[in-house]
Order: sequence, then structure tokens, then C-alpha cells
Amino acid sequence: MRKVAILGIGQTKIDEHWDKSLREIGGEAALAAMQDAGVEKVDSLFVGNMIAPIANEQNQLGAFFADWIGLWKQEAVKVEAACGSGAAAFRAGLMAVASGDVESALVMGVEKMTDKAGHDITAALATAADADYEVEQGVSFVGLNALLMRRYMHEFGWKHADFAPFSINAHANAMENPFARLHQRITVETFETSSMVATPINLFDASPIGDGAAAAVIVPAEKAARRPRILVSASAAATDTIAVHSRQDPLFLQAAYVSSKKAYQMAGVTPDDVDVFELHDAFTIMAALSLEASGFAERGQGVRLGLDNEISPQGRVPVCTRGGLKARGHPVGATGMYQIVEIVQQLRGECGSTQVDGARIGMAQNIGGSGATILTHILSVES
Amino acid sequence: MRKVAILGIGQTKIDEHWDKSLREIGGEAALAAMQDAGVEKVDSLFVGNMIAPIANEQNQLGAFFADWIGLWKQEAVKVEAACGSGAAAFRAGLMAVASGDVESALVMGVEKMTDKAGHDITAALATAADADYEVEQGVSFVGLNALLMRRYMHEFGWKHADFAPFSINAHANAMENPFARLHQRITVETFETSSMVATPINLFDASPIGDGAAAAVIVPAEKAARRPRILVSASAAATDTIAVHSRQDPLFLQAAYVSSKKAYQMAGVTPDDVDVFELHDAFTIMAALSLEASGFAERGQGVRLGLDNEISPQGRVPVCTRGGLKARGHPVGATGMYQIVEIVQQLRGECGSTQVDGARIGMAQNIGGSGATILTHILSVES
Repeated sequence: MRKVAILGIGQTKIDEHWDKSLREIGGEAALAAMQDAGVEKVDSLFVGNMIAPIANEQNQLGAFFADWIGLWKQEAVKVEAACGSGAAAFRAGLMAVASGDVESALVMGVEKMTDKAGHDITAALATAADADYEVEQGVSFVGLNALLMRRYMHEFGWKHADFAPFSINAHANAMENPFARLHQRITVETFETSSMVATPINLFDASPIGDGAAAAVIVPAEKAARRPRILVSASAAATDTIAVHSRQDPLFLQAAYVSSKKAYQMAGVTPDDVDVFELHDAFTIMAALSLEASGFAERGQGVRLGLDNEISPQGRVPVCTRGGLKARGHPVGATGMYQIVEIVQQLRGECGSTQVDGARIGMAQNIGGSGATILTHILSVES
Repeated sequence: MRKVAILGIGQTKIDEHWDKSLREIGGEAALAAMQDAGVEKVDSLFVGNMIAPIANEQNQLGAFFADWIGLWKQEAVKVEAACGSGAAAFRAGLMAVASGDVESALVMGVEKMTDKAGHDITAALATAADADYEVEQGVSFVGLNALLMRRYMHEFGWKHADFAPFSINAHANAMENPFARLHQRITVETFETSSMVATPINLFDASPIGDGAAAAVIVPAEKAARRPRILVSASAAATDTIAVHSRQDPLFLQAAYVSSKKAYQMAGVTPDDVDVFELHDAFTIMAALSLEASGFAERGQGVRLGLDNEISPQGRVPVCTRGGLKARGHPVGATGMYQIVEIVQQLRGECGSTQVDGARIGMAQNIGGSGATILTHILSVES
């Protein structure tokens, strides 16, 4: 498997873009990535998207975007793994370049979520869960996460305010990120007094949806002249049962454990070597569970990393350095590509006051469903 | 790029399976392919599907099926390219195995289309077209193909009955295939007197939808002990504009031309070397256009192959030898995998009275939208 490098990145601001179509949002990020890479053409296009069939009545986003951005005749395809679609598309593009069958790929994650009524989007998001055995019972996607958070608090003795640092850190870091949806510093008081969504998840535990797209151009490493050269050191994916109730231990993200372990082996690193970690904080509980399953904290101790101030850009395990899903925003099928793009920004040293000093190894972890599909990627600056 | 072989295949009968769920239909084909391959586990799962998010309110089919068929913890993902989803999933799985990152992949195409009302499915199928510029005008998917057929008849001087041989051949061949949806021999009279769907497309120009799934297990060629060894000699994908009206020449399938040309080069063959061709006869007009763009007929002369009796299993260019989309049925996201499976059956010599004598090289071509995404695969028996 030949080595692959990331040559260019692009992203759009996450927002309610009522003045821009799915086409325009995706095209903006895709063309920005190609411009950043200094290329006018690529061999192939991989699009990560979850809800366009429902929210935009549009399928076949591969051909759709190849047409729009002028990649005429080129191969193009869509990859879907619920909220893990972005990283799943990245991995598919990676396999194509690594196999030697194509010499370059543009990978984009895109979502246009705000043209439909809220209840339609809630239903669309629920397609990530098990239609027959979960959604049929009336449980929403946030409801499933609320059950996990409640159980975690009960099991390990944490109170709701103990999750505040994840949200506070994400909001603080987003202040520096012009592409973030929310620019609002928050305190423990903001966190604790916000509206309830699904007990115990309140507004500041939950990430906001939004319209957005992020993209990257990848090529074989030996063809990447640009310095510093950002390498894809590892890529791994794993699954768990789609229904949460089928898991022996719902508080352990099995697929995060398996995919991160594979990724560490492939990259030849340990969690200690990871300088920055863009995790999937769709809800604060998911941040805690990701840290635990990926080897950064003991079982039930993920929240302690926040309380001990270890997760800031100056801490031992910096997470959500550009705002995370919580404050940058969570355009579901695009999120995985925002994470990849943000790790590249860190490794290039472009993150201003939230720059992790001397970051050389970064990890991105993207989650589909309540932990059913998890992809872990490790990027590094060539040493 | 290392060589890949197809170790096992499986499929379900295409029908209105009101007694079986999406899970059960997909699982049946997947487990049959693993049993045929003689394996109990694979490293990765690739699922081709188009309309489950709408028709079954279910996304994340990778994890969904990995869970159901017992591929616990394994990587799994869904690939979508409208009616080209099956072959797109096959190509994604192929890249993963070819790259060396995984040692085996199960690829399945699956669709459960008959649980929703007809108008819902018509709307779901229209997501293959351009939502902003085609569907917005009220045109349905069959409507777009009707415009193409009308123009073709006008441009090249054919009458409707000239398309009959495609439908007659498909129906005759399906008689031998227990997995086909329709088992009914037809004549020119049946064809000409059937109900109109969208002028000039009538009932026997159009393929029936259905519930179905088809699957294959692929491994590196050097690990495939089974004889005869079926190799994937070529895989290529290309796109065209998503909206038909954007094409300079709507009667030429640019993406079929590009992908078949690439495939011929990769396999080191010409159209003359292809013993059997499973083409995408969603409508009879598509059969004609595929034959022309893929080098089997001159422009405007695709229908002549049918009239000259060249497309039967005993002809010069055997097509739809198991019934094609027309009579085997067209469970949209599954069709590409049925085509792959049927080529394997031909190369193994398992096709009874529709067996192409001494078939050693077979081609499958899967189309998404009205020609927007086209994938061409060439399989061969190791010589």
C-alpha cells in the first residue's frame, strides 16, 4: 500500500446558508481545496454525505459535484456511514490512491440541512439508528445519546456539570476559527442553565447542525512536492452493532477501540505520541467515551481530562482545537472532512492562539450512529 | 495494484418480498456468497444501495449489515451512485483489496422497494436526476428516458417495434434464471400492444423494480485456490453531466465510452474479445446506447444488433443472458452486483440453456441516472 499525502484543503463556514444551494456549498469547499493544492484537475472524486436524499431530494452526489466543479468525465462516487460519512469517503479515496489505480483524489464532505423543517431533519438523522428496533420505538438520535449519558453518570458517579469543560473548551477554541458556526464563549453557568433537550442532555451538551462542506486533495506521497508534507500515517475503520441495546457494554465504544488500536499499530505510535485529537463530540458524552476507548483515559474517567484542564490546546490531550462538533458545528456527513482539514491546519501550524505547539502527529476520529461505525485517521508531518 | 479474484457469489430471487425485511433480503445474498466462497469471515463489507434512506428510513447500511450477518467489529460502509450503486460498491471493495489494506471484502447490492407506495418510489428514483433543474420541472426518471428514446427514433429513423428484440431476448433468457422476477416469454405483439408508460416507452421497454440483493466475496488472486479462478481484469468508472439537457450529445453515453475504453485497455482486450455483456437495460433505449458507446455498434445502430439476432446467447454479442434488468428485475442499488454475479455464472459455465459457449471474458456495465455515472468491469477466467 503506497503512502499518501494531503496536498490541499478547503472548507466553508458552517451556518444556515439559506442563500446557497447544496451545489454551491460543496463546490466552494471543493474548489478551495483544489486551489490550495495547486491543481486544476484530479482523477477521482469521493463525496461523503448522509441526508441529501431526504433533505435535498438528491442522490448520486458523485456525478452531481463532478459536473458542478468541472471534473468532467472523471470517476465520482458517494460514500455514506451516517455521521461518519466524511471520514468514510476519505478512506475510500485513500484506498483508490493507495491501490495505484488513480493518481489523485478529491474528497469532500457536504451537507445542506437547513432547507427542511426541524422535524424532517430529526427524522432524517434518525436513519443513523436502527429503523426496525430503535426508531420504531419512538426514540430519537439525541434520545439514544441521552440514555448513554444518564447511564454513564449513574455508573461512574459523575454529575452533569462535570461535562462542562468539553463544551467550554470547544466554544473557546471556535472563537479563533472563522469557519465555525458559533462564536460565543461560555462558562459553567451558561452550560448548567441552558435549555434541556433530552434529559440529561441540554443545549450545550449537543452540537448544532448546519450547512457546510470541507474537502482535501490527496496524492501519492512521492508526488507531493509541497512542504511541510502531511502524510496519512494510518487509516482504520470498525463497526459495532447498529442498535445500542444489542451491545454487551453500551458505555464502551468498541469500534473506537478497534479502529484506534489498528491506527496506532499502522502509524507506529501510542496515544502519548498524539499531539492533537479531533474527536467526535456530537454530544459531550461522546467526547468522554471516545477518549476512553481510544486509550487517553481509563474507563469512566474521560470527563476527568476536562476537569483537569488537559484538553485545551496547551493541555496533554488537546481536543476540538477548532471548535469541535459542538461549536464549529456538525453538518453531519461533512464533519469527518472538517476534522481531517483541521488536523492538517494544526500540522501546518496555521491555528493561531489555538495552535498546539509543535504539533507533528494528529488524530481524527469520526463516528457514525451511536458508535456503530467509527473511523480513525492519523496524520503526521514528515520528519 | 494487485490482482483480485472473485471467490464466491450469492443472490436472492427478485420479487415483491412482503414477508422479508431489508435485513433479511440482504443477509440471504451475503451469507450465500460467503458460503459459496467457503469463508466464515471477511475483513470488510461494502454495500451498494440507493433508496433505503427514503424507502426504509435506514442509513448506515454498512454497520447495519455487518451487525446482521455477524461481521462484528469489521469495517463496513455504503456506496451510492443511484442505479450504479452496486458496481460502485464493487469497485470500492476492489480498491480496498487491491491496495493491500484488507485481505478480503464482501460486496453486496441490496434494495427493498415494495414497502412504500408507488408515488413515493417514483419520487425516490427521481433523486438520481438533477433535483434543481430536472425534477423541479416535473420530469420523472422514466420521462427523461422517454425523451431520449423519442429523439433517438427521430434522429436515426427507427420505429418502436425495432426495440422489441431487447425485451424479447431478456424475457427468453430469464426463463432459465430462478432468481429472475419475471418468467414470461414475450413476442413482438406482446411488446407492441402493452400499456404506455411515458411515450414512447411502454411496459415492455421498462424494467420492473423489485426487492433483491446480490453479493460477491473478493480476495487477492494469489489467495484464491478455487478453480476455475475468476479474475477482475478491469474496473473503470466515469461520469457525465447529471442533467441530460447539459450534454452536448444526449444520445451518446460519454461515461460508457470513457469507462469501457479504460476497461478494455486495462484488460488488454477489444469489444470483439468480450464473450458476454451484461448491460444496463433499465429501458430498451439504454441497451442500444450502451452497445454503441461501448464499441459494439456504430452510432444509431445499436438496435440493429437485436434485429439481426446478434444479442442472444448464441449471437455475436450476447446480452442480458440471465434476463437483464428487463426480466430479471431492477432493484436499483442491487443491479450492479446482479450483473457481476451473472458474469461469474457465465464464466463458471453454470447457465444451462442460456450459457454462452466457452465464455472466458465477460463485461458488466452499470449505469447511475440517465448515464451520469457509468462503471464497467471486465471479468475473465484465468487462462
